[in-house]
Amino acid sequence: MPSRYLSFRCSVPWLILLLQALILTRAFFSFPDAGNIYQPPDFYPEFQDVNHIVLFGFGFFLMVLRRYGFSSTGFNFLLIVLGVQCSVLMEDLLVFLRVQQNKVGMESLAKAVVSMTAVVISTGAVLGKANPVQLIVMTLVELILFCVSRCINRAFLEVPDSLSWMHVHLFGAYFGLAVASRFPEPPPGLDKNRSTPKSELFSMLGSVFVWVFWPSFNSILAESRREAVLNSYFALAVSAVSAFVLSALTSRGGKFRMTHIHSAVLAGGVTISYTAPSIQHPWIAMILGLLGSVITILGSHCVQRCFNPPLKLQDTSGVHFTFGLPAVLGAVAAVVLSVVDQGTDTQWNNLSSLGYLIFVDLGAFCQTISTALVTGLITGLILNTKLFKTVPVSKYFDDQFYWEFPHLSVGF
Amino acid sequence: MPSRYLSFRCSVPWLILLLQALILTRAFFSFPDAGNIYQPPDFYPEFQDVNHIVLFGFGFFLMVLRRYGFSSTGFNFLLIVLGVQCSVLMEDLLVFLRVQQNKVGMESLAKAVVSMTAVVISTGAVLGKANPVQLIVMTLVELILFCVSRCINRAFLEVPDSLSWMHVHLFGAYFGLAVASRFPEPPPGLDKNRSTPKSELFSMLGSVFVWVFWPSFNSILAESRREAVLNSYFALAVSAVSAFVLSALTSRGGKFRMTHIHSAVLAGGVTISYTAPSIQHPWIAMILGLLGSVITILGSHCVQRCFNPPLKLQDTSGVHFTFGLPAVLGAVAAVVLSVVDQGTDTQWNNLSSLGYLIFVDLGAFCQTISTALVTGLITGLILNTKLFKTVPVSKYFDDQFYWEFPHLSVGF
Amino acid sequence: MPSRYLSFRCSVPWLILLLQALILTRAFFSFPDAGNIYQPPDFYPEFQDVNHIVLFGFGFFLMVLRRYGFSSTGFNFLLIVLGVQCSVLMEDLLVFLRVQQNKVGMESLAKAVVSMTAVVISTGAVLGKANPVQLIVMTLVELILFCVSRCINRAFLEVPDSLSWMHVHLFGAYFGLAVASRFPEPPPGLDKNRSTPKSELFSMLGSVFVWVFWPSFNSILAESRREAVLNSYFALAVSAVSAFVLSALTSRGGKFRMTHIHSAVLAGGVTISYTAPSIQHPWIAMILGLLGSVITILGSHCVQRCFNPPLKLQDTSGVHFTFGLPAVLGAVAAVVLSVVDQGTDTQWNNLSSLGYLIFVDLGAFCQTISTALVTGLITGLILNTKLFKTVPVSKYFDDQFYWEFPHLSVGF
Repeated sequence: MPSRYLSFRCSVPWLILLLQALILTRAFFSFPDAGNIYQPPDFYPEFQDVNHIVLFGFGFFLMVLRRYGFSSTGFNFLLIVLGVQCSVLMEDLLVFLRVQQNKVGMESLAKAVVSMTAVVISTGAVLGKANPVQLIVMTLVELILFCVSRCINRAFLEVPDSLSWMHVHLFGAYFGLAVASRFPEPPPGLDKNRSTPKSELFSMLGSVFVWVFWPSFNSILAESRREAVLNSYFALAVSAVSAFVLSALTSRGGKFRMTHIHSAVLAGGVTISYTAPSIQHPWIAMILGLLGSVITILGSHCVQRCFNPPLKLQDTSGVHFTFGLPAVLGAVAAVVLSVVDQGTDTQWNNLSSLGYLIFVDLGAFCQTISTALVTGLITGLILNTKLFKTVPVSKYFDDQFYWEFPHLSVGF
Repeated sequence: MPSRYLSFRCSVPWLILLLQALILTRAFFSFPDAGNIYQPPDFYPEFQDVNHIVLFGFGFFLMVLRRYGFSSTGFNFLLIVLGVQCSVLMEDLLVFLRVQQNKVGMESLAKAVVSMTAVVISTGAVLGKANPVQLIVMTLVELILFCVSRCINRAFLEVPDSLSWMHVHLFGAYFGLAVASRFPEPPPGLDKNRSTPKSELFSMLGSVFVWVFWPSFNSILAESRREAVLNSYFALAVSAVSAFVLSALTSRGGKFRMTHIHSAVLAGGVTISYTAPSIQHPWIAMILGLLGSVITILGSHCVQRCFNPPLKLQDTSGVHFTFGLPAVLGAVAAVVLSVVDQGTDTQWNNLSSLGYLIFVDLGAFCQTISTALVTGLITGLILNTKLFKTVPVSKYFDDQFYWEFPHLSVGF
Repeated sequence: MPSRYLSFRCSVPWLILLLQALILTRAFFSFPDAGNIYQPPDFYPEFQDVNHIVLFGFGFFLMVLRRYGFSSTGFNFLLIVLGVQCSVLMEDLLVFLRVQQNKVGMESLAKAVVSMTAVVISTGAVLGKANPVQLIVMTLVELILFCVSRCINRAFLEVPDSLSWMHVHLFGAYFGLAVASRFPEPPPGLDKNRSTPKSELFSMLGSVFVWVFWPSFNSILAESRREAVLNSYFALAVSAVSAFVLSALTSRGGKFRMTHIHSAVLAGGVTISYTAPSIQHPWIAMILGLLGSVITILGSHCVQRCFNPPLKLQDTSGVHFTFGLPAVLGAVAAVVLSVVDQGTDTQWNNLSSLGYLIFVDLGAFCQTISTALVTGLITGLILNTKLFKTVPVSKYFDDQFYWEFPHLSVGF
């Protein structure tokens, strides 16, 4: 038994190597004229912020498990550097196929980092349960499917590009949940999936990073960046305040719970991501932030009690209520706001065009979520075939299965 | 007794909720025309730096106590997101009352974050002793009083706006001290107010962050930003060097002490904050950085031996010598430098105008510090009435009083 | 014996004080006209990034030893704030001697921070073995020598300025190794030079920071910044991927090893530093990143087995394979690329000019590395004379020798 895993584990580097070789070959043929590719727009500081969110912020945000700190940051890092390259070259392939216009240089890189957010969110759902091969395959499949979903939205539903990018949270969360539902549950007595105060402090460090840089994330691909920054800031502030309120209201004895704070401070940013560039009044952004926080914390109680147990689903770092529910809320709010906006403009006379608008927006939303769920389920099934030799449940949430510890004292 | 605290604790979220509802209502009525509010100047990277200082830097800087890590970062986060919103709307009220001109969008947000620094500094003085309700009330009162103090400076003493903002450290430190003096002392045997190597490492992480971003803080509201950045950098560098020198000179056996380093590396930034945009020769900035460090470390010995014990004052994270004394030094230096500057210009002929200048600058300084002390004392008295049900001294400095620990092993 | 060290230790602050006084005096005489010095180009965000790399990134990157966390970050901080000031004034002296043109303000500061990287890298080689006096003397000597080496390159070999700055990794690594070779070896049973999972997590935190900000480092002094950023990003991404591949391939049981990841993720950045602004095709940058990672991980095995033991060299944080070997590779690659470039331009007709080009580039490389090795050896010999009262080997790698611990529990 151990030897089988040993021999399997040895295949991990070859898979990564093969992938990297493919990317290199593709890179060799794909960037022919250097003059063209180096015309990035001038958003280097914002790009660095987004890079920081994804690599540093999420890497430490995911460090909630007591014995899984190395893997949380390490695998997050591996998936991102691999995924960004794949994503840049996929974008390039789309240009080659004339599906979209040539947007090159740093903008293409920024889009690659943004679309990696979907993968990072999905990773949170299977945190500690998937081995590196499963994670890499999931990354590739998810990147391709998210790209396909965006293309469908753009081609058939004529959703503007900047909006279709913001489905990244929705897609990531539900794809991740669908994949996670196919993994066997850990035995009930296992205590390795608990957190310690120290691991939660590291996680807080990541959360604060993500919070501070989130306005950059919402504004980097937007048309009107200043509005996006201001609205995101207000929504994030209100959602953080509400997180404390609701955490104290829903826990025993009015104490705060750290995991609530982690999840809910980000909920505002996810909720506002669709509408940040277009909202004209900050109070709407603030209300959305408040609702995002409410749905996250109430969701965390309902989901963990009523939804996950019957589906035998274990969502390790709570992506369903941290990213999934706020993204649904945000998508619905975007439809409502755009209908109200359009309706006020035309004084509610042109109802058929309003109906078409609702149809298209809801269509994009439903298409994204159903694609995510269906393809996620299939991916989950494939990942749990014998081919990928899943981790035995007793080895879940354990760094020692993947990392060498030259030192004796191991506990986090 | 515990049930009384229990029932009281349950009132915390309602207070926050009420406040957030008020802010939302105000926001609904206050931002009427969207065209106006979105004209922020182009200092997004600097704004992010200041945001990072206040949220991340100070949050981790305050994490010196061994059992108070969650509350240090958590409550810091809560107070800032709440305070920034209050501050933006208060600024808006001033515009409505025609007290000041309409400066909107990101500049207003940046000012809100800067004025929150006063609150964060005050929080450091009562760290571990005040409960969340007391902290929130203190935040509101301090924001209003700091605003009033700035208005007096501007209206009656004609202090330029950018200078009056830099009284933020002075006001924060002495307000915090006055409030802290009204809190009962912890029993002498309590060891929870000590630090551990781990908590000091996290605190070092915060200090380095604050140090790196401090030039942005000093320059964000200044007229001539480049000078402000360069002078701040030099002052910070010299103060960090002197911190090591003085720490080794004043401790037994020539060893360094981490808390000295934490305090003194920032002293240069506080000292230079008044004069950074106007100093023309870097060596003056360097001398100020050196003096700031000297006053901090010598102050830390004198204050803890001669000043605090007779006043029965316990200043948990040493805000008196970290922020208070350097700010006094900086204010005095600003007066001296502006007099010398003016005097050299007029060849010391126009002594009456020089006298007026000294009178005005010292007046602004004295007004700020006395307002801070008097109102701080009153706030401290109010906060320690039975209405706010203070934390029993045995529960000081303890995360478990406020946070749920689902995990067993609690020690930081 | 202890009293001798005690009395010696007391001399540390006086040395720093003397140095700071010298710098202040120099500053007083050196910046005469304020109008000139404040014309910095507009790269404040990039400057902050580089500042962050050196202070925060490397400070935590070096925190691998279990009992040396305070000294790793603390001394790194001290050396940088001291070294940057020395470096700015040395630059100023060169201007005074008419060796180079007057480049002032923030550009001069940025160059000072970049040249401090050499010192930080060298510090890594003697981490835990040198006392603060030795470190400060090493800093000063190294800064002067690196400056001399750059002047030789510029004056006699006509290497462009931006390229000669990038020898900083090469110089730092080999100077540090030569110095470290003169320090006595720690006894074999000593376990204080091992890492713990916690110290490696802090180190990972630093690595991720350095990784994210590295494109800013490579582009801050370059002519064409956009190319430098994009090429650095791709090289870093490929080197991070290869780090995981090679770590799994070279360790027992296909497990990953954290120290490999730390070193190799940065190798790409070092390798590409010479050529980042001039490479026209991203795939070349990617190949260089791959090779950098390969040379680092294979080098780490060879160096630790075949090279260090016969030389009785102990390279505490592995600067030889983390910075030395990739820098050699990068320098060679720069020569090859520039020859190919030039050759393609002239259709390989003008072989004598090609030969001259190779001669000059290789000359600059050999001059830098031999200067570093020879002067490093001499510095190492001087530092280990009785004058500097070296740390006894039993006190290696121990915070308690330098820092006061008011708290009882000491272990990291």
